[in-house]
This record gives sequence, C-alpha cells and structure tokens, in this order.
Amino acid sequence: MKAIEGGRNIKANREALASKYFNCTLRERAVFEAGIKLGTIYHQFVGTPVNAANVDILERAIADGVRVQPFVKDITVRIDRSALRRKRDEFDYQTLTGNMLDVVLIIQIENASVKAGMRYIEELHYPLMYVQEVTED
Amino acid sequence: MKAIEGGRNIKANREALASKYFNCTLRERAVFEAGIKLGTIYHQFVGTPVNAANVDILERAIADGVRVQPFVKDITVRIDRSALRRKRDEFDYQTLTGNMLDVVLIIQIENASVKAGMRYIEELHYPLMYVQEVTED
Amino acid sequence: MKAIEGGRNIKANREALASKYFNCTLRERAVFEAGIKLGTIYHQFVGTPVNAANVDILERAIADGVRVQPFVKDITVRIDRSALRRKRDEFDYQTLTGNMLDVVLIIQIENASVKAGMRYIEELHYPLMYVQEVTED
Amino acid sequence: MKAIEGGRNIKANREALASKYFNCTLRERAVFEAGIKLGTIYHQFVGTPVNAANVDILERAIADGVRVQPFVKDITVRIDRSALRRKRDEFDYQTLTGNMLDVVLIIQIENASVKAGMRYIEELHYPLMYVQEVTED
Repeated sequence: MKAIEGGRNIKANREALASKYFNCTLRERAVFEAGIKLGTIYHQFVGTPVNAANVDILERAIADGVRVQPFVKDITVRIDRSALRRKRDEFDYQTLTGNMLDVVLIIQIENASVKAGMRYIEELHYPLMYVQEVTED
Repeated sequence: MKAIEGGRNIKANREALASKYFNCTLRERAVFEAGIKLGTIYHQFVGTPVNAANVDILERAIADGVRVQPFVKDITVRIDRSALRRKRDEFDYQTLTGNMLDVVLIIQIENASVKAGMRYIEELHYPLMYVQEVTED
Repeated sequence: MKAIEGGRNIKANREALASKYFNCTLRERAVFEAGIKLGTIYHQFVGTPVNAANVDILERAIADGVRVQPFVKDITVRIDRSALRRKRDEFDYQTLTGNMLDVVLIIQIENASVKAGMRYIEELHYPLMYVQEVTED
Repeated sequence: MKAIEGGRNIKANREALASKYFNCTLRERAVFEAGIKLGTIYHQFVGTPVNAANVDILERAIADGVRVQPFVKDITVRIDRSALRRKRDEFDYQTLTGNMLDVVLIIQIENASVKAGMRYIEELHYPLMYVQEVTED
C-alpha cells in the first residue's frame, strides 16, 4: 500500500515538474506528444531491414517501443506487406520506408485525448502524419 | 510571374489537400508539427559519431535537415561541447545522445505560431521536449 | 522441383553478379559483412525507447532484422537489463545505448566463416566491435 | 613535447588494448572496419530529410561523422541530386534513401589499407556495399 502510494507520488511529482515547462493547453500538449511519437517511429525505424520473415516482429517492436513512452494509451502499427515476399535468396530483403507504415495512436493526458496517425496518402504521394480527433472530457 | 503564381497554386493545392486530414485547430496542428520535428531530431541523429572536429557541421546539418520540413520558420540546434574534446587517439569520439541536445524551434502555420524545444533538465534527469508558447495573430 | 531449382539459379545469379564487385578473399568478404551488420545494429537501433516491458521484443526484433540480411548464419542479441526497471511512472524509460548491447554474430560465405561481436569493454570504456575467429574449411 | 608523447602513449595503449580482442589478420581487421563504417552511414542517415537546400551540408556531415571514427584515412560521400529539386512548396522534400548514396572509403590500419564503398548497382537493383582493393605494404 505504501509502495503503491509512493509510486503514485513519484509519478505525480515528476508530472508536476515536467508540467512547469509547458505553456499551452492540455489538448495542445496531448497533440504535441502525438507528434513526437510519430516523428520517433519514422526516424527511428525507417531503414530497418525487413522482409516477410520479420515483418510481424518488427511491427510489434515498433508498437511496444512507442508504448513505453509517456501518455501512450494505445497504438497499432501496420507495415504494408504488398512489397514484401518470402526470401528468395540472400539478397532478397528491403529496408523499411515511411510509405510502408500505417500507424494509429491514442494519446491521453488527464482528460485530454488525441487520436492521430500516419499513412501513405495516394493523392499527396507521401506518408502524412495527421490529427484525427482531439477530445476533452 | 506565371511561374511564381504556379508555385503558389501548387502549394495552396497541396496544403488544401493535406488539411482535409486534420480535425483540430490551427494552433493544435502547429503544436503537432513541433512535436514531429523534435521527435525527428532525437531519433534520426542520436547515435551519430561526434567529437570536437565535427560538432559544428553536425549542428548545422541537424538544423538544416529540420528546415526543409514543412512549417519550420526558425530553428537553432546546440550540441553540448562539455563532453567533447580534441581527438586524442583513433578511439576518442562519442556518439550523440539526447542529453547533449538543446533545440529551439519556431513553427508557423498561417497565423498560428509555436515556440517549442528540447533540452536536458537537471531536475528531471532527462532531455525534455516542451512547448514554450503558442500564439495566434 | 522446377521452382526450387529456379530459386537456386536466381540466387546463384545474384551472388555471381554481386561477387564481381569484390576484389578480396572470401575470408575478407565475410569479415566485411560482419562489420556491416554490427554497424547496422548500432546505428539503426541506438535511440530506441526501451524499458523492462519491451526489452525482450526489442532484442528479438534486432536479431531478426539482422537475420534477413545476406550471409547471416546465426546471431544473438542481449540488452543489458541492469539499467532497466519496471516502469515506475510515465517518464520512466530509457533509450537504447551502445553500451547496453552484447551481440554475437556468425557470418558464412561459402566455406568462409566469421565469428564477430560487439560488447562494452570495461578497460576501453566503450562498446567494441571485434572479430573473434575467421575460419575456412 | 611531453604532451605529444603522452598522447602517443595513450593512443598506443588503447590500440594495444583493443587489438587483444581481434583474432584475425590486419587486412581482415581493416576490411571489418570498412564494413562497420558503411553500415553506420546507411543506418544512421537513411531517413534524414533532404532536398536541394541541404544536400551539400548533409553530404559533408555524413563524411565528417565517419572521419571521426577510427582508422578512416579518407572518405567521399555523394548524394544523387537527380531526385532532388528546389523546394516547390512546404511539402516538397524527401528523406534520404540508400539508393541515393555513393560512398568511397579508405581505411588504414598500420600498413594494411582497404578501399571500399557503397553505390546503387543497376543490375542488382539495390545499393551494394563492396570491397574494391585490399593492400599491405
């Protein structure tokens, strides 16, 4: 009981400390955090070797790598398999590109919630990071 | 004259297309873009070999790499030199860490402007990404 | 049967094509490939968010990401858990550093085999990439 | 004079310490170091935002980032400009891919020297890392 309360206090303290450095609404902060996470995914993992043999584990590792960051309530990561095939020879693999990624992310800070994502948009010819919804209870 | 107007139209068209995918205020979108850029810097460049010989060029390359992204009005990147020294032998270099980075960033979308940044905060023991100011003319 | 033979021919053809660009012994080429893989691991994955919750999956994703590259016969990746703990609050995670990594890698090209690795060496104060053994049957 | 000799001794000591972990010829070690550097370039910098405005500085930053690593005698990095254009609108940039890179690298360890590189090979459809020459005086 003490330990749990201690944990809560530490968390509350660190959040209180970090909050001092923010001069914006909770909604804006939640949207900011969503942007950080999407930038992280793109620039940490683009370039990773990938083929049909490791695409599942790579999706999970990306999602779980985001989940350990602050304020992530939920995330799904999908890598487009249409460009990947069973390994045909030693040289048959690709490296992950932004165009292959489809990410949906929920950020929650107190009562502010953001649904954001990234996916390749045909009419734009590039992978767009976008904000789908911002809510505050 | 035609070329410039053509350029403006293309830009207006692409912004109009991208804007459809955003369901939030301009201020929130500007804060989102700030988050993306800071996540990009951290996860693209952390791990880069650095010592006193290349710290200047690395700072400039990081800043210029952000400047080519959308909505960046200004950026300054500082890498802490206190941990770097003149190369003493073949093995004397480090790789860039988040703790070494001090970034200040201005994002502008139409009349919404955001000042955000990242720096190591002593009392938090980690490099914090923060929002300093959001304004709308 | 045809398909398998076809696969073999494609592989043989691509290896023959790639081999033209190498002007060194098989042993040297195997050592070169080992160096590439270790550079890949360090510079692709350093910076990835990690704590006790995702360290297992990150180890597997790194190993499997290397396994899809050419000539990798075996690989083990260990991330040092001594610096990681159960998540205490939203802010309690780290990003992967080179010092946390312990990698052992076997490269095989035809009859040349290399055992190489990377690990933090106390007396050097940095993570060393090294060649443990080169053999040719 | 003392300082310089001290510097030489430190270097000699660290090289002697590191050398213990290598069980291969000098030529093989030089080829190994070449592989590390090429893997570093690809996986550190692929994904970096680039257009005509920052391509020069990015080339220099990549080259200088490699130059601070051990045993690099010379390096040239070229990014293919055929896919880059003057910035047309806010969204007009790309991220660096392996196919855009042309690298030539000289590694020297004592009297062993390696010329290696990476470039997109038309007939292979991917950027090949190769060893062009290994010499020992």
